[in-house]
Amino acid sequence: MVKQIEIRLKKYCRGFHLITEDIIASLPALPEFGLLNVFIQHSSAGLSLNENADYTVREDFETVFNKLIPENNPDYKHTTEGDDDLPAHVKSSLIGASLTIPISNGCLNMGIWQGIYLCEFRNNGGQRRLVLTIYY
Amino acid sequence: MVKQIEIRLKKYCRGFHLITEDIIASLPALPEFGLLNVFIQHSSAGLSLNENADYTVREDFETVFNKLIPENNPDYKHTTEGDDDLPAHVKSSLIGASLTIPISNGCLNMGIWQGIYLCEFRNNGGQRRLVLTIYY
Amino acid sequence: MVKQIEIRLKKYCRGFHLITEDIIASLPALPEFGLLNVFIQHSSAGLSLNENADYTVREDFETVFNKLIPENNPDYKHTTEGDDDLPAHVKSSLIGASLTIPISNGCLNMGIWQGIYLCEFRNNGGQRRLVLTIYY
Repeated sequence: MVKQIEIRLKKYCRGFHLITEDIIASLPALPEFGLLNVFIQHSSAGLSLNENADYTVREDFETVFNKLIPENNPDYKHTTEGDDDLPAHVKSSLIGASLTIPISNGCLNMGIWQGIYLCEFRNNGGQRRLVLTIYY
Repeated sequence: MVKQIEIRLKKYCRGFHLITEDIIASLPALPEFGLLNVFIQHSSAGLSLNENADYTVREDFETVFNKLIPENNPDYKHTTEGDDDLPAHVKSSLIGASLTIPISNGCLNMGIWQGIYLCEFRNNGGQRRLVLTIYY
Repeated sequence: MVKQIEIRLKKYCRGFHLITEDIIASLPALPEFGLLNVFIQHSSAGLSLNENADYTVREDFETVFNKLIPENNPDYKHTTEGDDDLPAHVKSSLIGASLTIPISNGCLNMGIWQGIYLCEFRNNGGQRRLVLTIYY
């Protein structure tokens, strides 16, 4: 069986943001066992699971990803929407657009150090849309 | 409940290719709500969701990934199948082998700018096999 | 319907390790058709599908990932747990924390060259915990 809802996040600035509580607050009552799929309907942002305690991890992520996929590369052809545009698309594909998380005993069964990251790769990405699907 | 089919894509050349229409054309009637898992049975190609309108994004992806994981690195040990072989394996793991996409109101519920990419990392990858699984 | 179990892997050293047989040995009887989700409850390790025959692929992966996300970068802020810590978090998000694999005719339906990799990015990661969820 499937339950599904669509939500729109508040606008986040460029960077990596912990949205675990936003996701949990949006969910209906969870089944005892199942899976949650979180899907972002965008190609210049992404979703990831990572460290949920120290905010410097998320700051370091921004540093590392900007170095990995630099802006202002003269080889890029897709440049009409700004220097951040093509790198945002590449970062989105590296990180991925969806997460699948187990549900156990009625709760999301992540590790104690795992949180859900919104990875906002655009300078002005706006309010991102998510589809949350529970299957059980 | 689960519906599953296996398909074989036509042969694509090395690069990033939009295969959304190939996937949709292969699917049986979709349920009202559910999820579609698209799985590629190969370790030197991958699947991703990204920009579906401007083909230069896909050309830029080829440029970026080739720079990120260069060929002809003398440190590589797995070289018997050609210079493109080991980099193709690494790129495959960076991009991923499967996608999970929500189904809503009987349609794939991607964002309007999202399309399904076949990421062909070999020079001669041949016809790639996919397993499409719908659960609802 | 959903079946779910939790397992703990033996301790692996830093690197990429083929754990397909460990996963299969842990699974209950599989349904005829469905999907298996393998989820790692950690933010400094990951899971991937890649080449299952030549161990030099996994050695090359360690070389490539260490070059891609180097240690000892003076820009990193999250450094209290050692030089391998922040790079391990980034690699984990690049590789991903879960896999979804089709089940067909009662077996995992991967390609013949695909195996499940535990990607251990810490020098001393300990015994990693996995949640295995079968849905059918």
